Amino acid sequence: MKRNIYLNPLSFDDAQNCIDTEFRFKENHKTEIISVEDSLGRISSSPVIAKLSNPNHNAAAMDGISVKSASTHEADPRNPVKLSVDIDFKWVDTGDVLPDDMDAVIMMEDLSEAEQKSVVITSPAVPWQHVRPVGEDIVCSEMIIPSMHRIRPVDIGAMIGGGITAIEVIKKPVVGIIPSGTEIIETPDQMIPGAILDSNSRMFSAMVSEYGGTPLRYSPVKDDYKLLKEAVIKALEECDLVILGAGSSAGSEDFSKSIIEEIGTLLFHGIAIKPGKPAIFGKASEKPLICIPGYPVSAWIVFDRLVQPLIRAMSRVKAEPKLKRSGILTRPLVSSLKHLEYVRVKCGQVGENTIVTPLSRGAGITMSLVNADAIVEVPREYEGYPAGSEVPLYMLKPWEEISERLVSIGSHDLLMDIINEIMIRNGSSGLSSTHSGTMGGVMAVKRGECHIAPVHVLNPENGVYNTHLLKQYLADNEVVIVKGIKRVQGLIVAEHNPEKITSITDLAERGLSFVNRQRGAGTRILFDYLCGKRNIPADSIKGYGREMNTHMSVAQAVLSGTADAGMGVESAARSMGLDFIPIGEEDYDFILRTEVLDSEAGQTFLNVLCSEQFKLEVNRLGGYILDAPGKIIRKEEC
Amino acid sequence: MKRNIYLNPLSFDDAQNCIDTEFRFKENHKTEIISVEDSLGRISSSPVIAKLSNPNHNAAAMDGISVKSASTHEADPRNPVKLSVDIDFKWVDTGDVLPDDMDAVIMMEDLSEAEQKSVVITSPAVPWQHVRPVGEDIVCSEMIIPSMHRIRPVDIGAMIGGGITAIEVIKKPVVGIIPSGTEIIETPDQMIPGAILDSNSRMFSAMVSEYGGTPLRYSPVKDDYKLLKEAVIKALEECDLVILGAGSSAGSEDFSKSIIEEIGTLLFHGIAIKPGKPAIFGKASEKPLICIPGYPVSAWIVFDRLVQPLIRAMSRVKAEPKLKRSGILTRPLVSSLKHLEYVRVKCGQVGENTIVTPLSRGAGITMSLVNADAIVEVPREYEGYPAGSEVPLYMLKPWEEISERLVSIGSHDLLMDIINEIMIRNGSSGLSSTHSGTMGGVMAVKRGECHIAPVHVLNPENGVYNTHLLKQYLADNEVVIVKGIKRVQGLIVAEHNPEKITSITDLAERGLSFVNRQRGAGTRILFDYLCGKRNIPADSIKGYGREMNTHMSVAQAVLSGTADAGMGVESAARSMGLDFIPIGEEDYDFILRTEVLDSEAGQTFLNVLCSEQFKLEVNRLGGYILDAPGKIIRKEEC
Repeated sequence: MKRNIYLNPLSFDDAQNCIDTEFRFKENHKTEIISVEDSLGRISSSPVIAKLSNPNHNAAAMDGISVKSASTHEADPRNPVKLSVDIDFKWVDTGDVLPDDMDAVIMMEDLSEAEQKSVVITSPAVPWQHVRPVGEDIVCSEMIIPSMHRIRPVDIGAMIGGGITAIEVIKKPVVGIIPSGTEIIETPDQMIPGAILDSNSRMFSAMVSEYGGTPLRYSPVKDDYKLLKEAVIKALEECDLVILGAGSSAGSEDFSKSIIEEIGTLLFHGIAIKPGKPAIFGKASEKPLICIPGYPVSAWIVFDRLVQPLIRAMSRVKAEPKLKRSGILTRPLVSSLKHLEYVRVKCGQVGENTIVTPLSRGAGITMSLVNADAIVEVPREYEGYPAGSEVPLYMLKPWEEISERLVSIGSHDLLMDIINEIMIRNGSSGLSSTHSGTMGGVMAVKRGECHIAPVHVLNPENGVYNTHLLKQYLADNEVVIVKGIKRVQGLIVAEHNPEKITSITDLAERGLSFVNRQRGAGTRILFDYLCGKRNIPADSIKGYGREMNTHMSVAQAVLSGTADAGMGVESAARSMGLDFIPIGEEDYDFILRTEVLDSEAGQTFLNVLCSEQFKLEVNRLGGYILDAPGKIIRKEEC
Repeated sequence: MKRNIYLNPLSFDDAQNCIDTEFRFKENHKTEIISVEDSLGRISSSPVIAKLSNPNHNAAAMDGISVKSASTHEADPRNPVKLSVDIDFKWVDTGDVLPDDMDAVIMMEDLSEAEQKSVVITSPAVPWQHVRPVGEDIVCSEMIIPSMHRIRPVDIGAMIGGGITAIEVIKKPVVGIIPSGTEIIETPDQMIPGAILDSNSRMFSAMVSEYGGTPLRYSPVKDDYKLLKEAVIKALEECDLVILGAGSSAGSEDFSKSIIEEIGTLLFHGIAIKPGKPAIFGKASEKPLICIPGYPVSAWIVFDRLVQPLIRAMSRVKAEPKLKRSGILTRPLVSSLKHLEYVRVKCGQVGENTIVTPLSRGAGITMSLVNADAIVEVPREYEGYPAGSEVPLYMLKPWEEISERLVSIGSHDLLMDIINEIMIRNGSSGLSSTHSGTMGGVMAVKRGECHIAPVHVLNPENGVYNTHLLKQYLADNEVVIVKGIKRVQGLIVAEHNPEKITSITDLAERGLSFVNRQRGAGTRILFDYLCGKRNIPADSIKGYGREMNTHMSVAQAVLSGTADAGMGVESAARSMGLDFIPIGEEDYDFILRTEVLDSEAGQTFLNVLCSEQFKLEVNRLGGYILDAPGKIIRKEEC
């Protein structure tokens, strides 16, 4: 059985050098002639020279009279001169052509008497005063814009004004995109088990547009060598660069490699980057022919880092310069020595610090890229960075958006999406939520890594939720509790509860499979507490070690039949049409840094909690009880 | 005769407040449903919730075998376990659906023996290891993007992956643009004396597109009250905002105002800004109806400052955040107390300083906006800023482009455009040229305001050009002379020289009209020198006081018949088909700050001077002699 093993993947720099050497797009380019009116954002391929002067005639620059300056020389306050219409002067408005026999304009305001047929002036006119001369704006044969200039609206105005109607610009490179894989489907209505929606090729198309190219997306091709080869040959004829989107099967990648070898030259297979390792770069008909791995994050990274420069070299559309920013890691970031690793992170501005929290690193987690604010690169031969390190950031979202958000780290609840949405609708920048469980949130507040921590943990000593956290863990911090909602926790089970589960005891006694939350999650702490109360050894429960990060993922595991039950909130069960066995109510509250109360974002947050809109949305979700949301409890009251 | 006089124009802030109060676009918006594939750059109007989980099945995350984890518990290096295909395991490739009866995957690399029908393992499989669970990436009913989010390629990928095909987005506002004025023509072939090409409406269209709107440009309407009113009523029906582009006649503005008053409400007429004062804002059918002045720079300013926020409030497309930059004024900037003034400036990075040089301030000079790098705002009630002031800059071009350019201040020659163009074609950022005449350039070098100064001035003592400047004016500066070209100076006269001019003496004796260059221009110094040698009092020459800033403008004045002759270079005469009477050769050289010689841009500049390409282009222009371009003369050799 032949398998591709990347014993010696190329380093990123070597890969880039290889591409630069093979394809010298920076040195030559295709051009096309288009209408000036359609040229916004395009790149001029040669200097644009005015064909007409603008204005194309001498014109009055003021409302008033046009005169022969020679006939005004004598005028003086002590010697007013009377001028007669048509003989000595003609009336003109701003913009009027200067009559051929006149060489100056006197402003309305400077006439000491003004009748329709005669005027009196008391000072002479200097030749060409208040005259807008031919070519004052643009002189015929003057250069309007140089070559390699990205055309702006004002350039379009100047070109039209200079008599130019058509312009030679850099031709947009046509980038062919061929999705491959028998499992690939184009629309959700074709969904069957094992099918994968063709999302990468749509993402590539949008990326090509952003880089100044024209995407040409083909229909997905099955894992059939002959069909795929035909598709590639056709695309090479029609496009300037061809992307093969590999399917998720190993066979798909093998085919792509063989096709590149058969109809062109394989440049390299495998790059020492993560995600993105299995990329294949080749050359056919002097064009780049690139096979991009199927996992969405790998696909994005390879496209962004290695395909983008190729397309931009052809389109000449420069990337918006990225600001160089850095931030402080809130957690250690461990990386392999073997790869240059791209880690997706969330960022936030907490006090003086830009804080950086790594997200999931799976190559398949598109949402880690959607939710990421930036990427941290861990170079090859680095073991990673310890917590507290300052790391450079490659920003994925505008800094303005990031810096004004409330940073929330802690327990997960659907509620956080609702609060975020209402904040945004009210014109705020919203929340940046990272789900680390209650204790993760408490520690993040303690270390100054977030503004706000959603928490839900029982004080077994008095049966009260959350308030004990302030004195127990945050004695030295300026923090308050803001009351949130009460929520019902319970067991999420399949629709109609086929296993007739009624309690945690059932799980242990009947060997049913469970799906757990991650360590530090309040729900897990509650589960452990309940097990303890019932004297059930937690590890006697099948699946106790299978961890999910959110209520929704737990519900999903139950929905897909891989677990009989999971612990979570009613809203998660409801949203997937699952059954729910209530076990108890708990308080889901927020720890806030005191200073946040005074900030604009903090005020918006509090307002949202007290709003009718919030009440409405929460009631729609179900499983929540609104008691006194937004109520502030200070440490001394705990 | 009724004239509009703006006695009390609104302040900019009052104008903005008035607009904000009248049109509350920030609080409501129109939406439309479009295909996710077409949604790049659009703004979501509500949160997007996943309809399908992704992946939609449990899948192998590695190539290898799928197993029942329970059947592997015994495996150990000392107790290898043999598994049989189809009974204990099934072969799987990455991405394959996990068979229903299996709950874990063992990697190919971890099999100690692997035959097609049986394998041997030496360690147990943990349940769900190497399995990509349903919803690992996107969980059905999870929020993919919130509302008011600008859609990026990765968002498109995630939405498609989550089973979303259509999305509700903010509808692009339709902005109607009605050019008006009887003198307005649409294409250069309609040009007659007094006609004006309709460039503003095309500039507005491009601006609307940039702000996230859909421009709808109508055909120009003559200065006819009824026609204009009909056009406005039609546009108000079809658009969300209507722009009336005023013609250059005063009547056009009067019509617009009356129409606004007749069919809607006049909000204000006149703003205390310069350029841009005569803008008229009104409201009709609850929509903004705005009359924009006809001068291109005024038009741009009013559109950028007051119309842009309205369109962006409707489109919800945020502006790219502008970097806050400042720079040092090289010249005093005098402004009127009455207006907030927008002054176009050129910028450059010279040594440690960002230097700022004001450009022409005429409202009609589109090229001052095309060539500007930034705008300096001089607030109302400010008299301006002295030279050396640090002023805030509103950037119009990317800083990367500006900071890498060679800053040239000094004498003007067409050559400078050629050098710039060749530098750009060779991948450099090129030249930023400001024309201030030779002496202006020398002073700019002295004050450290430019890298390079093109100069041409004779030392009357020894008949040698330029080299004396180093010791005479730049004794304390580290500078060199770089030799440029020899050029022929002479009189530019009309085609076929109808006045039979042969010398400067003809001008004085026969009272012919002349057009001069600005003070400090080498050409003017040469003219004065020649007059002196011939004992002609300069001011006896008619038109001596009429000043132009470039050779091209001089040629243009001759071409348009407003002057019989002007002094300039042969290339300018040739480019307009004029006759030329040579008077003498002169050296057009460059003063360079010594440090520039070592910079990359400086090296490119020198290489261009010595290149074949340069020689070719210069010879094509004509009137130049290439002797030793690029030769460096140090101060000690002068």
